[in-house]
Amino acid sequence: VSPPVLAVLGGTGSLGLALARRWSAAGIPVVIGSRDAARAAAAAAALGTELAGRPGHAPVRGTDNRRAARQADVVVVSVPYEALASTAEAVGGELAGKTVVSAVVPLRPPRTAVVWLPPAGSAAAELAMGLPDARVVAAFQNVAAAKLAVLDAPVRGDVLVCGDDRDAKAQVVDLAGRIGLRALDAGPLANAGVVEGLTALLIGLNRRHRATTSIEITGLDRSGP
Amino acid sequence: VSPPVLAVLGGTGSLGLALARRWSAAGIPVVIGSRDAARAAAAAAALGTELAGRPGHAPVRGTDNRRAARQADVVVVSVPYEALASTAEAVGGELAGKTVVSAVVPLRPPRTAVVWLPPAGSAAAELAMGLPDARVVAAFQNVAAAKLAVLDAPVRGDVLVCGDDRDAKAQVVDLAGRIGLRALDAGPLANAGVVEGLTALLIGLNRRHRATTSIEITGLDRSGP
Repeated sequence: VSPPVLAVLGGTGSLGLALARRWSAAGIPVVIGSRDAARAAAAAAALGTELAGRPGHAPVRGTDNRRAARQADVVVVSVPYEALASTAEAVGGELAGKTVVSAVVPLRPPRTAVVWLPPAGSAAAELAMGLPDARVVAAFQNVAAAKLAVLDAPVRGDVLVCGDDRDAKAQVVDLAGRIGLRALDAGPLANAGVVEGLTALLIGLNRRHRATTSIEITGLDRSGP
Repeated sequence: VSPPVLAVLGGTGSLGLALARRWSAAGIPVVIGSRDAARAAAAAAALGTELAGRPGHAPVRGTDNRRAARQADVVVVSVPYEALASTAEAVGGELAGKTVVSAVVPLRPPRTAVVWLPPAGSAAAELAMGLPDARVVAAFQNVAAAKLAVLDAPVRGDVLVCGDDRDAKAQVVDLAGRIGLRALDAGPLANAGVVEGLTALLIGLNRRHRATTSIEITGLDRSGP
């Protein structure tokens, strides 16, 4: 089975680019999307150069968010919360039936260490309301992008996956596993607000401890059930 | 300095009793509170018998929630969410100026693996609104009571401490440390909903994996700054 083509919208941001780097290095074709197609193309070209000597990597392309969404089987949304509504509007028509992964974290600068959630309860729930035909899953919000960005460096921390579509969740768990992250089914999309909100707590811990924190579930066998 | 006297309201429940057992074993005097004074007294007597041969333990008493709150310097509230409002009303007059620790988790049976938070955003925030003169801190919601209940067994998992009073938070961090739990300042009381909601995610993970899970923060030196 050939791997799915992934699009990472907001793929020039720190988390999006780190995910794109890891997935393409792991042999999964990635399309980086951005509001600015030229910026996405430049990021993809740089990533391609970086990966050129690396066996087993897959090609990376870059284009605007809408084209990126159209070309992909699974679409990861990694835009700032402020850009979520406009991004969903721009790409919505391309997402019917697709697995759409919200890595979006609602934050209210300058108080980014204080939990704030949108009226829908989470950015992921807000996205799902705007995309009734997509299979929206929430994941990757708590990953430390700075650590993920360094290929081959181990990344600690679990990915908590929330969603109402079992197959889409399984697909995301698999995609996380391909880049060395343990992903766990964390229940329905109604649980996504807690996972998004955790990021604000981690930001506060990072500041107070001058650290790069993430969360891990204890009490599970590493190999799973 | 003699340790503070602790009251654990709802101290006959599984988490409350496990906390009472650990604290009294660690030499901190505990008053178990319950709506039913006789039940609290019986639980305290049983705990006293259990600890009798153990060097360094402190006395445990049991009485009704109101008397327990009156006799204590720090009051841990570990009642079911459904009993929170009535408990706060019963004991409120005893809590002015005291540190009050909410270990309450709002759950909506039978869907206890789905996050549900009260209109105030968290049980702790709701409690704080009802107790304007107390120093309310949220903590201990994610601890696995079944593991905490077994004295001397190590308990993994971090305690995330949320509150708006710095001294009260430091007091709770210290109290957690005395029973071998690492506690971390997780920001203001506005962050408590995320910590409470995490419990629903852990309940779901426990079911799916037949496990007893908790959460841990990675990326910090164990000794902390």
